[in-house]
Amino acid sequence: MVRQGNIDNPPKTPLVPGFECCGIVESVAENTHGFEIGDRVMAFMNYNAWAEVVCTPVDFVYKMPDDMTFTEAAAFSLNFVAAYMMLFEVASLREGMSVLVHSAGGAVGQAVAQLCSTVPNVTVFGIASCFKHTSIKDSVTHLFDRNADYIQEVKKISTDGVDIVLDCLCGENTGKSLSLLKPLGTYILYGASNMVTGETKSFFSFAKSWWQVEKVNPIKLYEENKVIAGFSLLNLLFKQGGCNLVKSAMDKLLILYEQKKIRPVVDSLWALEEVKEAMQRIHDRGNIGKLILDVEKSPTPLMANDSTETSEAGEEEEEPEGDNDSKERMPFIH
Amino acid sequence: MVRQGNIDNPPKTPLVPGFECCGIVESVAENTHGFEIGDRVMAFMNYNAWAEVVCTPVDFVYKMPDDMTFTEAAAFSLNFVAAYMMLFEVASLREGMSVLVHSAGGAVGQAVAQLCSTVPNVTVFGIASCFKHTSIKDSVTHLFDRNADYIQEVKKISTDGVDIVLDCLCGENTGKSLSLLKPLGTYILYGASNMVTGETKSFFSFAKSWWQVEKVNPIKLYEENKVIAGFSLLNLLFKQGGCNLVKSAMDKLLILYEQKKIRPVVDSLWALEEVKEAMQRIHDRGNIGKLILDVEKSPTPLMANDSTETSEAGEEEEEPEGDNDSKERMPFIH
Repeated sequence: MVRQGNIDNPPKTPLVPGFECCGIVESVAENTHGFEIGDRVMAFMNYNAWAEVVCTPVDFVYKMPDDMTFTEAAAFSLNFVAAYMMLFEVASLREGMSVLVHSAGGAVGQAVAQLCSTVPNVTVFGIASCFKHTSIKDSVTHLFDRNADYIQEVKKISTDGVDIVLDCLCGENTGKSLSLLKPLGTYILYGASNMVTGETKSFFSFAKSWWQVEKVNPIKLYEENKVIAGFSLLNLLFKQGGCNLVKSAMDKLLILYEQKKIRPVVDSLWALEEVKEAMQRIHDRGNIGKLILDVEKSPTPLMANDSTETSEAGEEEEEPEGDNDSKERMPFIH
Repeated sequence: MVRQGNIDNPPKTPLVPGFECCGIVESVAENTHGFEIGDRVMAFMNYNAWAEVVCTPVDFVYKMPDDMTFTEAAAFSLNFVAAYMMLFEVASLREGMSVLVHSAGGAVGQAVAQLCSTVPNVTVFGIASCFKHTSIKDSVTHLFDRNADYIQEVKKISTDGVDIVLDCLCGENTGKSLSLLKPLGTYILYGASNMVTGETKSFFSFAKSWWQVEKVNPIKLYEENKVIAGFSLLNLLFKQGGCNLVKSAMDKLLILYEQKKIRPVVDSLWALEEVKEAMQRIHDRGNIGKLILDVEKSPTPLMANDSTETSEAGEEEEEPEGDNDSKERMPFIH
């Protein structure tokens, strides 16, 4: 969305995109506590993460666990923090509940599926493009084609609906998703990838989507006992002073990582020079999980699934890795 | 609202109002398990609770704790279940959070204040008419006049807003209350007592309030990281099959009652013949807590605060007590 200009107050160009990265600390400011030169870290950035060297406030930086690779670290923070806060803080995922996640094949979708598996007896309904089904079918309980009448399919399995809907789309899907909620169920809109409707910058197509979003009457929510929420991790971090809330989620996520209960899904690694091809892959919805820009990689795409060995060769690199954003993560760019 | 005809699909008149009661079991249907004749019980009713004898499905009936009086039992269920489910299931009240409650002097408001005191370090901002302040000032942390600019007053104390807003009003207050939410904060609309605008039945005034409720754009919620919810306990119970959810809340509330952490606030006891005067007291917003219709009481109002001894004299009565609804509870009548 940043690339297409589809955001409210886009920063002035030229700009460096990217909201998270990982690498090794090269220097620290005076009176900085908790970090030393040489520490392996991951960090949130308010833009500028697609770079060889980055500078960010200490509140946005986290030490990497010893057994986490740089490839994993570059794909960890935004996706898992967003998924965790939506499931456990905005909604209250508990044993026996059901979750519907749109873009189940995206990086946030895959993080949602993994976090759901940490709670007993949670049913996950995933919506994804057909061609991703083979790759992700084991990560969710039920998988539906985004072009099918998934509302009816879900209701066949769970007649009274679902407890939580995570929707990274917007527009016509909002009303459909709301109708699927059980009483006391929570619908969370965490982005608007439907807005990315064309290859070229198009404010008009954005505005059209924006106004097509159905507004919600609070009295209807009252009658139906429903909850509707919005979640923007970037706004929380960079506009609303939510560092401490995010830190609390990260602490819990790092424990889950060390218990080997969660692990980021990486689609592919790309050299900085290949950013155009990487973006095209996202635009075509071709990715499963996250694309990583590796500043020390030579310009030949390497699929994560092809050879885990080789992708791990990048682990010892001393330069930070930026990452780009899958379409599913686009909503966070704001 | 039932009395004024201010609901969507009012039942045909003549009707008997009332949604909860308590008393002693007179008879049970065949194959009814868990209850015997002579049990002291409280029950939810889909209308018809203002009566000497009532009949309701077993799923809506709960045994009274041994040390609970009938006066307490008649005021316990709806208020505490609504307050509990809103604070702990729709929102996730945790240590250190802040809660703003409108109509703090009403029965639900008082239940909210008591439940907040069971969680460490929770700040409660109460909004109530000035003349109630002396009576309820000890139940909340900060108390504001409903006619004052309480938004500014709350922001003076908590510059970044509050975590949870419980709003039994609607109309102009919705937008004001939403603006008070912290990021990730939850606004819950649990009724619409603003709709009770006149003494006479007035569909027009109802419809006008209805349309004045500001609709909410989900994208605004996304940008601001906010949650908006509606809660109607009666719809949950009688239209949406929520018995099991309510039972789970009741079980927890009865433990809190037995631990002496919560206790229903009773405004006054009235004879069935005094129902008109009792309703006027509610309409004038005169009550603190709940008004009880006591079927064995003679027609002279007895203020609960005047003599606890005397009000407890009704405990051994064998007839069920209906209860009427304070204005703050009117929203549940739907």
